[in-house]
Amino acid sequence: MQLAERRKKLREELIRAAERRIESHGLSGLRARDLAGEVGCAVGAIYNVFPDLDALILAVNARTLKAFEAFVAQENANELARPPLSAVVRLVALASSYLEFAVAHHRRWAALFQHRMTEGRLVPDWYLAEQERLFRHVETPLRDLRPELDDRERTMLARTLFAAVHGVVSIGLDEKLAPMPLPALRQQLAEIVDAIGAGLSRH
Amino acid sequence: MQLAERRKKLREELIRAAERRIESHGLSGLRARDLAGEVGCAVGAIYNVFPDLDALILAVNARTLKAFEAFVAQENANELARPPLSAVVRLVALASSYLEFAVAHHRRWAALFQHRMTEGRLVPDWYLAEQERLFRHVETPLRDLRPELDDRERTMLARTLFAAVHGVVSIGLDEKLAPMPLPALRQQLAEIVDAIGAGLSRH
Repeated sequence: MQLAERRKKLREELIRAAERRIESHGLSGLRARDLAGEVGCAVGAIYNVFPDLDALILAVNARTLKAFEAFVAQENANELARPPLSAVVRLVALASSYLEFAVAHHRRWAALFQHRMTEGRLVPDWYLAEQERLFRHVETPLRDLRPELDDRERTMLARTLFAAVHGVVSIGLDEKLAPMPLPALRQQLAEIVDAIGAGLSRH
Repeated sequence: MQLAERRKKLREELIRAAERRIESHGLSGLRARDLAGEVGCAVGAIYNVFPDLDALILAVNARTLKAFEAFVAQENANELARPPLSAVVRLVALASSYLEFAVAHHRRWAALFQHRMTEGRLVPDWYLAEQERLFRHVETPLRDLRPELDDRERTMLARTLFAAVHGVVSIGLDEKLAPMPLPALRQQLAEIVDAIGAGLSRH
């Protein structure tokens, strides 16, 4: 095997090992030593394929974003058979997919928000682009709901809507604030997104 | 000075020292050693007045909740001179106070959500009661907006509305996700809460 191939394989194995570790122990349970042990390499070898742990975590988080996108696509595939849905119904469905993904992959989902770059480092552009891409799923129904908004306004509203949904999901699932029973949380999330959609479309 | 008085004074001093430390360095910068140094006591003395650091942090966080309540009361005092405001306008004003408090006391506010009890410990009831009390500020306008809801439904909706507002504020101020400029965030928060209010009141 060529060196480049070996590096690529090790990189892949480390991402998968880190993903499993985050899934089972959460982001705070991630240690370079454990990963090296799991894939059978020296700790130093990790830093031959990733500049630092931040880069490895971002690679895992990018995979989580992709997994979420696949999850949304799968949920929406069922809708294709039905007549076209209203923008509000599509927003409620997106929010619901977000909640179900967070429930099914709780620790990987939480890692998206828990991870902080090492002091003084910036999140790289490629990762920001991955995040942005997800917001487009929210922008599409907003285009129907508020056709008068320009691109900048729609982008901003999509982010705000995402943030509101994220707040309901993350506080609803948070053990600290006495979590809401899941059926109640599902119903509350649908109700609030429905209200936002109705409120936004009244213009 | 009596022993009970001395303990009370030390307790007060430790809470204030921890509050200053959180305000300047964030919750993760809180160390028993630094606090003992600042108030001039032995590290062990901290544990004479608090069972553990969790208890001290909860005492600081409870003060932050009270400070937020005072902040809301002060902001609302200006409104008393004006004619009674609609429920939606009051909800928008509450959300705006929440944002301004988070901006003005960013690290103390963040500590409310960052703090996690030591594994296996539960948040004590007195602290949960303090949190609940704050939700009542959201319940009052909801009573006008959705008079048909029973107490349980209104409590749940107040929590959900808070969570949505918290999401917009926390993601909007988060450096990781490319923060929104404050004027844009203010406008977005007002717009989304206004939409929620309009959407909820359409029933």
